[in-house]
Amino acid sequence: MTDTAAGHFITLEGGEGTGKSTLAKALARKLEAHGIGVVVTREPGGTPLAEAARQLLLHPPEGEAWSPLSEALLVNAARRDHLEKLIRPALARGDWVICDRFADSTRVYQSIEGGVDVSALLSIEREVLGDTVPSMTLILDVSLDVASKRRTARAGALDTFERRPKAFHEAVRAAFQDIARSEPARCRLIDTDVTPDQVLDAAWKQVATLLQNARTAAP
Amino acid sequence: MTDTAAGHFITLEGGEGTGKSTLAKALARKLEAHGIGVVVTREPGGTPLAEAARQLLLHPPEGEAWSPLSEALLVNAARRDHLEKLIRPALARGDWVICDRFADSTRVYQSIEGGVDVSALLSIEREVLGDTVPSMTLILDVSLDVASKRRTARAGALDTFERRPKAFHEAVRAAFQDIARSEPARCRLIDTDVTPDQVLDAAWKQVATLLQNARTAAP
Repeated sequence: MTDTAAGHFITLEGGEGTGKSTLAKALARKLEAHGIGVVVTREPGGTPLAEAARQLLLHPPEGEAWSPLSEALLVNAARRDHLEKLIRPALARGDWVICDRFADSTRVYQSIEGGVDVSALLSIEREVLGDTVPSMTLILDVSLDVASKRRTARAGALDTFERRPKAFHEAVRAAFQDIARSEPARCRLIDTDVTPDQVLDAAWKQVATLLQNARTAAP
Repeated sequence: MTDTAAGHFITLEGGEGTGKSTLAKALARKLEAHGIGVVVTREPGGTPLAEAARQLLLHPPEGEAWSPLSEALLVNAARRDHLEKLIRPALARGDWVICDRFADSTRVYQSIEGGVDVSALLSIEREVLGDTVPSMTLILDVSLDVASKRRTARAGALDTFERRPKAFHEAVRAAFQDIARSEPARCRLIDTDVTPDQVLDAAWKQVATLLQNARTAAP
């Protein structure tokens, strides 16, 4: 799906407070300045059905909670809809897609919350993604102190994922770092303990390599 | 989970118009007359979260439709909740559980609707069920003419599954018959082209064997 004839699929991953959504928009502006059509989206969500599933996931009926495996299955139901109706059509028409969280978040959160076999998660992921694997995944890494300050500074109520103890955020950070190490061809670890401009520069340096490859391959 | 110390888990499967929900209630009354606690439930649904997922599945937002793989994942998210919060606790306290549709319906409907690899469905099923496999599955079989008359006679609007062409119902029937043939230790094919009393007699003859085994094994 993501060969040079079609658009590129870029996913942004990492814990809360790493600046994924801000970076997604900034990268989109830079790509658009190069004449590229860009779709910025997020998970869970991105399509009407996937957003409905997101609501059910993040706001279950009073007193109810999803178990990790149920959560993983629900997120993947939403992901499949998102892939079929938004991501693949965009890539097929030559647009690039930047997605705020994708399959790596499921691997990290549902396995850390426990009770879900990682090989089962990966098997579901393979079935759901098919050949739509990200061209590049930027894993935004941040020290816990900086992330904590950013989260506290945010306006509005904290959602389910954000009301967690420090040990949880440490485990999330370590799990994302592990993915970056284990899949170096796809993943780039981006240090975000710096200014937003510096983060954007570092991220753009990586994304620009896709632009270069696409141009080199063009007739 | 379903050894003789705990309750038995019985699932009723088959196409629409085979009389599953009527039979579930009638079997429960007969078991209760033998002093057995019985929980009658259904899928998708059975718990607050699973019923919420059922709503999302059967009544998607206007103009939207779930793809077969998304449907299978959503149903399995609901199933896991149902297993963890209702089915397993009931079996653990010694009750029997009769469930109107379960994993075989997912195998049949999502594979017939196409695009979902059967081995992927079975792999998800194994992960979600764990060791909570039905003690016995009654597969209700009916000729298409009889099923069609029963469906037409029902009050109220037909749901998504019921507005299907004849070829679909033929494929469903054949797929359930295949499951019955391939898993004879678990499955019993019950002919429902007869009176409700005759169906109940045939079903009870099968269920009573579990009662007999449970008593033989008791100290």
